[in-house]
Amino acid sequence: MIILSRSEIEALVDLDTGLAAVEQAYIAASQGRATIPPVGYLAFPEVDGDCHIKYGHISGDPLFVVKIASGFYRNPSIGLSTSSGVMLALSATTGQLEAILLDEGFLTDLRTGLGGAIATRALCRPDARRVAIVGSGIQASMQIRCLHRAMRETSLTFTLWGRSEVKSATIAQTLAGEGIPVETTDNLEALCRSADIIITTTPARQPLIPSEWIAPGTHITAVGADAPGKHELDTALVARADIRIADHLDQSLAHGEFSAAFDAGLITRDSCSELGGVLAGMAPGRKNRADITIADLTGIVVQDIAITREILDAASKSLDKPVVDLST
Amino acid sequence: MIILSRSEIEALVDLDTGLAAVEQAYIAASQGRATIPPVGYLAFPEVDGDCHIKYGHISGDPLFVVKIASGFYRNPSIGLSTSSGVMLALSATTGQLEAILLDEGFLTDLRTGLGGAIATRALCRPDARRVAIVGSGIQASMQIRCLHRAMRETSLTFTLWGRSEVKSATIAQTLAGEGIPVETTDNLEALCRSADIIITTTPARQPLIPSEWIAPGTHITAVGADAPGKHELDTALVARADIRIADHLDQSLAHGEFSAAFDAGLITRDSCSELGGVLAGMAPGRKNRADITIADLTGIVVQDIAITREILDAASKSLDKPVVDLST
Repeated sequence: MIILSRSEIEALVDLDTGLAAVEQAYIAASQGRATIPPVGYLAFPEVDGDCHIKYGHISGDPLFVVKIASGFYRNPSIGLSTSSGVMLALSATTGQLEAILLDEGFLTDLRTGLGGAIATRALCRPDARRVAIVGSGIQASMQIRCLHRAMRETSLTFTLWGRSEVKSATIAQTLAGEGIPVETTDNLEALCRSADIIITTTPARQPLIPSEWIAPGTHITAVGADAPGKHELDTALVARADIRIADHLDQSLAHGEFSAAFDAGLITRDSCSELGGVLAGMAPGRKNRADITIADLTGIVVQDIAITREILDAASKSLDKPVVDLST
Repeated sequence: MIILSRSEIEALVDLDTGLAAVEQAYIAASQGRATIPPVGYLAFPEVDGDCHIKYGHISGDPLFVVKIASGFYRNPSIGLSTSSGVMLALSATTGQLEAILLDEGFLTDLRTGLGGAIATRALCRPDARRVAIVGSGIQASMQIRCLHRAMRETSLTFTLWGRSEVKSATIAQTLAGEGIPVETTDNLEALCRSADIIITTTPARQPLIPSEWIAPGTHITAVGADAPGKHELDTALVARADIRIADHLDQSLAHGEFSAAFDAGLITRDSCSELGGVLAGMAPGRKNRADITIADLTGIVVQDIAITREILDAASKSLDKPVVDLST
């Protein structure tokens, strides 16, 4: 049994292998090769906190994963991070606990960034260059970092809008230090009107982006809406999109970005597809230059399984011996 | 954050405080003071394995608990224990991971033993002396150990029947070493006919104990049936009982010892009560000497919460400093 700290995990991250692993995991999920039970949930309303327990298994994978991720929204007032978490990897052949990843939520942030990059790359126009990032939280920088890596052969430009100018500037400074130039703007409308790609990363409960701001040919990846009541995009925009893709369609229609339009009867289930199907070539992605495409990512346990496996594989390589038996 | 190994946990166990804590937890559950979501489940049919994920919170408790418990039934053939597991304790005010108890299933065995002792003590006749233990697995010895402690002011005698004479003898030898005399028998019928208390601990899928073997006044605690298809007692015996008590009635009627009789229409929900209600004096326990009483224990996350808190409290005392902030 191995226990890895957050700093050890961060040192083992390889975005390229992570992108490949998460992409394969999406495909496995859409092809029915994954067991994805309903997400467990505990609420702590007195302290504005909650905890999600995600667990699942990809058929044939030597490990299964249980992830515990909490969000306690008053933590910053006492100097603690809002989110924390831990990933457990257990053997799918013996049930033994093989690894504890004390990632404190980092791997969830990472796999969400990787998922966004995979969806964006799969659905944007081939000549898309101008990327608008909406939001100034952890996902803003993570989405930029992962997309920059996933599309490094394309000269993307990143412009960020956030409610907090201070936080936006900090993100731009951090990413500049990683060699990724990011501009900031205070004009969300102009940003959206001129973008080829828009990535929304906010916990908005009122739509931030009306349909009329969006030009034909735009791709939007929305990662903010992950619970009932949250949505970032105008329902008219969701309904207007030519292509609607979700990482997990049940989740998206129940409590993701597509749920408001679905509940209002503006879209049908049949008018949406899953990302894994698009990646496997089994479902239609972008067909025309002028298509508006939207990817809604609510998060799915196969991403957690994939990133856990990659971290453990990297740990084995760095130690030059297997830390966990990853043979199938 | 503290991590405790199985041997460290075993050294911290105090059966008396454990009994008191689990008793209070049952009461909290029956009074609606606990959040007990449905148990998460993953199956691995190719290797005859499964994993249960139990999680919950007792209102006002500083910690909440997530327990992962796996059972992989081919493990003994490769020298591994069938069951393994880990308990995680998180702060109910900040969501931070506070403790990892690498108990390998020991705490589940322990809290099941404590629960059985609490139910047996609450429901048996005051003059009950002769205890029959059915089964020769881990729970056989754990039930004896906990009941011996819970009723140490009563001169109980223990007689054990198991399919495996070797395993039965080993249990008797182990417990003799702990100062608890246990006899063994190969005559299950005679054992049941002469017992005041019967504790069944087997994974039986066909009833082991017909109704006609049971004398008036007998108390039975059944801990084996914890999944669909398992039951140890004749449905006629369940129906005949004067008092039927479950740790968690929904679970018992769905997949516990009472489910077969309930599905057959032999008992109603209203004819059963919950253990916590009996312990709190809110539900009827034994009324008459001649009552046949049955307690069905399927396991409930509040037991895990209680035992985890007790272990962490003991760890704090042994280190003479708090390992986790247990203040409410």
